[in-house]
Amino acid sequence: MGLTVLKVGGAVVENAESLARLIADFAAMEGPKVLVHGGGRSATAMATRLGIETHMVDGRRITDDDMLRVVTMVYGGLVNKRIVALLQAAGVNGLGLTGADMDIIRSHRRPPKGGIDYGWVGDVDRADGQRLASLIREGVVPVIAPLTHDGQGHLLNTNADTMAQTVACALAPYYRVSLRYAFEKRGVMRDPDDPSTLIPHITEADFERLKADGIVSGGMVPKVENALQAIRQGVGEVLIGETRIS
Amino acid sequence: MGLTVLKVGGAVVENAESLARLIADFAAMEGPKVLVHGGGRSATAMATRLGIETHMVDGRRITDDDMLRVVTMVYGGLVNKRIVALLQAAGVNGLGLTGADMDIIRSHRRPPKGGIDYGWVGDVDRADGQRLASLIREGVVPVIAPLTHDGQGHLLNTNADTMAQTVACALAPYYRVSLRYAFEKRGVMRDPDDPSTLIPHITEADFERLKADGIVSGGMVPKVENALQAIRQGVGEVLIGETRIS
Repeated sequence: MGLTVLKVGGAVVENAESLARLIADFAAMEGPKVLVHGGGRSATAMATRLGIETHMVDGRRITDDDMLRVVTMVYGGLVNKRIVALLQAAGVNGLGLTGADMDIIRSHRRPPKGGIDYGWVGDVDRADGQRLASLIREGVVPVIAPLTHDGQGHLLNTNADTMAQTVACALAPYYRVSLRYAFEKRGVMRDPDDPSTLIPHITEADFERLKADGIVSGGMVPKVENALQAIRQGVGEVLIGETRIS
Repeated sequence: MGLTVLKVGGAVVENAESLARLIADFAAMEGPKVLVHGGGRSATAMATRLGIETHMVDGRRITDDDMLRVVTMVYGGLVNKRIVALLQAAGVNGLGLTGADMDIIRSHRRPPKGGIDYGWVGDVDRADGQRLASLIREGVVPVIAPLTHDGQGHLLNTNADTMAQTVACALAPYYRVSLRYAFEKRGVMRDPDDPSTLIPHITEADFERLKADGIVSGGMVPKVENALQAIRQGVGEVLIGETRIS
């Protein structure tokens, strides 16, 4: 049976209008499903209001004690619970989760790399696909916030793309999984500013060539690498595309 | 089989030392269990940092749009997820929940009373004991934040004592439930300032007399009324007592 893991970025869930559209589209999606969301802009805005500075390195948030409290509140509370309440109203039996809840996703604190200490940032070790599959079989729709834990009492700020990939792979033994990354562009394009140059399908071999030719570059490289890794680990297909999901 | 529903106030979970003790005590408690927590002081502190004024009427928080965002972040995120991560480290398979998650606790927005509009405050209608019992049978320990939802997409700030009582009653068909309210005093006392005047046991008839004599008064009246209502609805026993739970 097919199952969809949909990952949506912060920009989609932080704007009332696009959030309402997401809820409607997601509710209309057939079959079992999982939603993984971001929330970075809200976290940055909340940090600013609290007088906490945001430091990003290569698109990753440096997460000190104060910032961990901010992302815990914003991702695990504000964004996650709002989505769950809206899904319930749309007839979807959402259950908000972080990796700590039922020990669904375990990670370890990222060791300092190249002189950079990311703080309370987690690199994912494993997801409990069996537990997730069992909930899903009962009609529950997991709504996953980008937080994990280390099993020693610490929450860890975790990349939502990676979490979606991990969850998709963990569910692959139980379902034919379609992993969808919804974001602001139409997909992977030869010219990022020209939607008509969309590349409709990328295989492992295609990617090596596209990367060597410099056509896939920047932030798109890890996204496509994650996607191909998911395929290697049993995910049926990965779609990288527009915010509009239906 | 016996099950314990433990309700702890904000004061316990907001101090690192008492929180650590709670986690250890709760982890040591035998048998199936549920934790219901408050978080009012953290919410007030966070509101103040954000320049949002806190208005209380008869101990209840007026919850406008801004305050709803604060309690959603603080109760559903900051306090709840921190407890869950600490419980996981203590070997307890915690699952953080609001009433919206899996539609566990449904409420309706309290209509204005006596000229007071409490805002986004919920009066509880029902809890899904079957779903909670099914999770508990699988070894999951629900950790419940004082938030519910109205089924129309709105989260509602909800009294944690009432939520604990509702959860205890909803589980009564499945377990012999012991409902424990942990708070800062030793229990119900004839003289609130003299612990030696503790009343060890109160029946329905006792309560009427104690109330008529003015011995049980103020904030203790609704607490004992809630307790007796729980007994009438099938809860095995209700304990009102000290923070220290072991």
